[in-house]
Amino acid sequence: MINFRTDLALERRDLYKKANNLQNEIDGIETNEEQIGENIKITKVKILNEKGEKAIGKKAGNYITIDIKNMKIAGEEDIQKASEAVTKELKVLLSNLVGEQDDILVVGLGNLYVTPDALGPKVIQDIDITRHLLTYMPNLLDKDTRPVSAISPGVLGTTGIETLEILKGIVDNIHPKLVIVIDALASRSIERISSTVQIADTGIVPGAGVGNQRKELTKDTLGIPVIAIGIPTVVEAATIAADCLDLFIQKVQEEAKSNDFLNKLQEENKYEMIKEVLAPEEYNFIVTPKEIDELIENMSSVVARGINFATQK
Amino acid sequence: MINFRTDLALERRDLYKKANNLQNEIDGIETNEEQIGENIKITKVKILNEKGEKAIGKKAGNYITIDIKNMKIAGEEDIQKASEAVTKELKVLLSNLVGEQDDILVVGLGNLYVTPDALGPKVIQDIDITRHLLTYMPNLLDKDTRPVSAISPGVLGTTGIETLEILKGIVDNIHPKLVIVIDALASRSIERISSTVQIADTGIVPGAGVGNQRKELTKDTLGIPVIAIGIPTVVEAATIAADCLDLFIQKVQEEAKSNDFLNKLQEENKYEMIKEVLAPEEYNFIVTPKEIDELIENMSSVVARGINFATQK
Amino acid sequence: MINFRTDLALERRDLYKKANNLQNEIDGIETNEEQIGENIKITKVKILNEKGEKAIGKKAGNYITIDIKNMKIAGEEDIQKASEAVTKELKVLLSNLVGEQDDILVVGLGNLYVTPDALGPKVIQDIDITRHLLTYMPNLLDKDTRPVSAISPGVLGTTGIETLEILKGIVDNIHPKLVIVIDALASRSIERISSTVQIADTGIVPGAGVGNQRKELTKDTLGIPVIAIGIPTVVEAATIAADCLDLFIQKVQEEAKSNDFLNKLQEENKYEMIKEVLAPEEYNFIVTPKEIDELIENMSSVVARGINFATQK
Amino acid sequence: MINFRTDLALERRDLYKKANNLQNEIDGIETNEEQIGENIKITKVKILNEKGEKAIGKKAGNYITIDIKNMKIAGEEDIQKASEAVTKELKVLLSNLVGEQDDILVVGLGNLYVTPDALGPKVIQDIDITRHLLTYMPNLLDKDTRPVSAISPGVLGTTGIETLEILKGIVDNIHPKLVIVIDALASRSIERISSTVQIADTGIVPGAGVGNQRKELTKDTLGIPVIAIGIPTVVEAATIAADCLDLFIQKVQEEAKSNDFLNKLQEENKYEMIKEVLAPEEYNFIVTPKEIDELIENMSSVVARGINFATQK
Repeated sequence: MINFRTDLALERRDLYKKANNLQNEIDGIETNEEQIGENIKITKVKILNEKGEKAIGKKAGNYITIDIKNMKIAGEEDIQKASEAVTKELKVLLSNLVGEQDDILVVGLGNLYVTPDALGPKVIQDIDITRHLLTYMPNLLDKDTRPVSAISPGVLGTTGIETLEILKGIVDNIHPKLVIVIDALASRSIERISSTVQIADTGIVPGAGVGNQRKELTKDTLGIPVIAIGIPTVVEAATIAADCLDLFIQKVQEEAKSNDFLNKLQEENKYEMIKEVLAPEEYNFIVTPKEIDELIENMSSVVARGINFATQK
Repeated sequence: MINFRTDLALERRDLYKKANNLQNEIDGIETNEEQIGENIKITKVKILNEKGEKAIGKKAGNYITIDIKNMKIAGEEDIQKASEAVTKELKVLLSNLVGEQDDILVVGLGNLYVTPDALGPKVIQDIDITRHLLTYMPNLLDKDTRPVSAISPGVLGTTGIETLEILKGIVDNIHPKLVIVIDALASRSIERISSTVQIADTGIVPGAGVGNQRKELTKDTLGIPVIAIGIPTVVEAATIAADCLDLFIQKVQEEAKSNDFLNKLQEENKYEMIKEVLAPEEYNFIVTPKEIDELIENMSSVVARGINFATQK
Repeated sequence: MINFRTDLALERRDLYKKANNLQNEIDGIETNEEQIGENIKITKVKILNEKGEKAIGKKAGNYITIDIKNMKIAGEEDIQKASEAVTKELKVLLSNLVGEQDDILVVGLGNLYVTPDALGPKVIQDIDITRHLLTYMPNLLDKDTRPVSAISPGVLGTTGIETLEILKGIVDNIHPKLVIVIDALASRSIERISSTVQIADTGIVPGAGVGNQRKELTKDTLGIPVIAIGIPTVVEAATIAADCLDLFIQKVQEEAKSNDFLNKLQEENKYEMIKEVLAPEEYNFIVTPKEIDELIENMSSVVARGINFATQK
Repeated sequence: MINFRTDLALERRDLYKKANNLQNEIDGIETNEEQIGENIKITKVKILNEKGEKAIGKKAGNYITIDIKNMKIAGEEDIQKASEAVTKELKVLLSNLVGEQDDILVVGLGNLYVTPDALGPKVIQDIDITRHLLTYMPNLLDKDTRPVSAISPGVLGTTGIETLEILKGIVDNIHPKLVIVIDALASRSIERISSTVQIADTGIVPGAGVGNQRKELTKDTLGIPVIAIGIPTVVEAATIAADCLDLFIQKVQEEAKSNDFLNKLQEENKYEMIKEVLAPEEYNFIVTPKEIDELIENMSSVVARGINFATQK
């Protein structure tokens, strides 16, 4: 199977088509595109059956990708528009799975203290929670308010507990009818970082997410439907290097050049070529260890102490 | 000239030697190594004259590189040892430039709100400030305490003012005898991120630092000696891709393989090769836009609102 | 019953004795003091029976108060000493309740985003988690390592779920033998803010904690022993005002002064008297709404926009 | 003179009138009120001469107080409206002092790391900076864009340098025509915390601000006009206690009660009375040391270590 190195069904489908030189859609997959205004594009990938599942290594179901341009400089209005696109797609999936007043639990996966993994917990801070109000102050709310609760369970490395174990316990105790899980994803494309939302009605399956092996969070394991909202927040350095190498090999092959050509290759040319591949004008890309924050804390101490002891006797 | 893509004199010297197949030291440069315990290595690069300056594109002077292993998991003791190494080297430079009680201003360059650029401002938080105490409560301090002050002036993009203009104004007003500038650097090597300190008695010259063009902060511009303490916090994605490409070309050349070889290259092999180049066991490297934090804030709003409006009618 | 306005058993006992003019210990309570070095004082209050329970409104059991002086300026060494005192007392309680290798779940109550309520979640970040390592990499650990896991469940206002519901679910799923709960408390004394630890083997009962009514977290509700570690982080403004008033009334009564006296009272004298009650030299006390951080975010936007539109046309 | 314990000219004027039983306006002061919509109230206090200065201890000039209701729950729209009020008043003051394209420097006083003192630095993050763009990319901007720069100089305790020394240096180097200074203030009223803006064309004079003695930032010291934008972020605990006592004394006097009355006063009654004074329904007031964040960091270490060593052998 192809080493996709992406959690987005859309990117996997594109890679599969390219690798297999397919002109038409993959057997077992349906796709559908829609442009909203200038900045928002919605692509729906539906995996119909086992054939589709095998091709791109994702569970059968709906994968809706919302690409938002210029997210970095988004103003109030752009954010509102993008959120309306999320609302619209999410509403359709919800209405297929639960009733209008059925209890929903929103789960923010990830580690608040690791920037590219913090999206899930950050979303949770802004969710409008109603479940406790319906219990303690029902007269404050409209009659048909849906009970919504939310939790950031942390990650295995900081809790020592599988996310599934935590959620299973809570679900069994408070009996929501559906879970929405927010998660950080890896993508192939730097432009998609924090600028794309994938909504899937299949839950989260092993291998997805940033790094860690985890148990799946799906209807099979939790007993209720799971909608996964994933946002790409990282691209692996190896992915970028591999993409460069692909481009390079392709160029060498196209020009039917060989060893000779390589011998003459100038550092400058090569670097320019790479720059071209890597650098969409708007971002400065950098490679950092995920632990950059901890590293910086430790290093701050080293340098500050170094100066303190050097400047005083 | 070589496109060094690193602010470390040591890395530049190594690249120059390799590019020119030099066995001996570069003309105009002296180097000196010292190992301290298991985890700390100090390398001193002294640029003696214009020849040395030209070779590696750095001002004549002393560049002391302190490499610290396993910084990520550093405990209290390791941090203390590393800081002692910084103290020792810094003390020697200081004693060559100013008297024991001469007033020092410590400057933390960089942007607190951009993780890989936040090191300078973070160090400033931990500096022991004495200048105001010597003025207002002198009896609290030892008689021979040196006046130390500190400031984080921000960056051009957030202040609209050149760092040099801010510092010039302050230096002219409070008359320190020496400035220590803390700065984030770019390096070639992922292992050096927040694990290496470069101390230089030459100040900071244009082109140094992460990204921005800036005016130099040196004795020439500030009128007093400037010691620069630089810490690599980023590697450019292009650097990594270029390094991979170099390795790849070298391999192709060594094996005298040509187009044929390329045609047969398997995705898997190539990816494995890249992994090997990129992946020291201890870190997970990721490529992120520098604006990742802002992106994540905006995206959090989009998703939270999307859910809020979807779950309520 | 007395309106104690404190969660510390020790303060309640002192208030009860004072209110009832008791010279000897309260019936049903045993107390015991120990001084460790200059800065640490340990007081053990043991509530023996219903009489003791009724007197001070706390469940029968052990309440150990560790007071640490000069916490604000604590160095590495002081922190180590204080933590050793916590270790020692906690070990005794643990050994009475569970075996040496029995599984423990540490729970950090509170809201990370409200400074005086953030202590629980912050402690959780620094707990050494072993449970997952024992499952996935047992050879990395000593044979007799105890499984420890940890979670910050959030607060009702941000999750919509009772803490008890979350913990009950997790406890039923992962079967720890004991829970340690970290919680922020209210105290009577400003000097105790973040400078005192109360360790209790009774769990947490309604009314405890900062503000919210909550269900109790005890052996009765969770089915396993619960040790509560509480740290005072706030004093209510009303408490301080009431204490001032008490002092004032007492003074008026002592001096047998009456309306006449009040008429002559000078603003200055009164303010000085209050200062005396409130101001231990080392702190600056301020009264803030708990929501200060949100308020400041909103106000920042107001002022920045105000300036932006005023300075440009 | 009255011990005002507030930096707001409006509160000082009210206290002075009350203390002197004035029905009419204070001699040397003019006042003017305006209500905007439901939530915003603007009061202008103009100190005309030395008489007015003496009465309330503030420099002659304009003090505009903008009170915003319900700031805590302010939505996007409320924030916009409040900022428009700030814009309108600020524009008038600006047009009296400088030309439309004259260079302005915005200064955020305060300490980012102490919540109630962080407002100035936080505002600076959101100021639209144009000065550097006008220099480096003038074609990106409208022709008549005003050059705006901004800086957060830190506080004496963390820099060792008087704010005046830093600003004097920068002003002398970059020659703005006016300085806008953002500052945290103390007020008498808990409702005003982060809900009121005072704009003054008199700059900042000693004694103002939270705590520290500082040199004045005015036209006299900086050589150019200084507009001060102050926001109350704290009330001293002593202020609240004193207000309670005032109320209490007043009540005792009104009712012509004496020692007898005091003897009978019940704790409950007194506490209720205090609650009434302190507790506007919407906030939870708490008394915290300003250093609460540091205290909490230290205490987190103590407890986490305590648990770590207690749970492992």
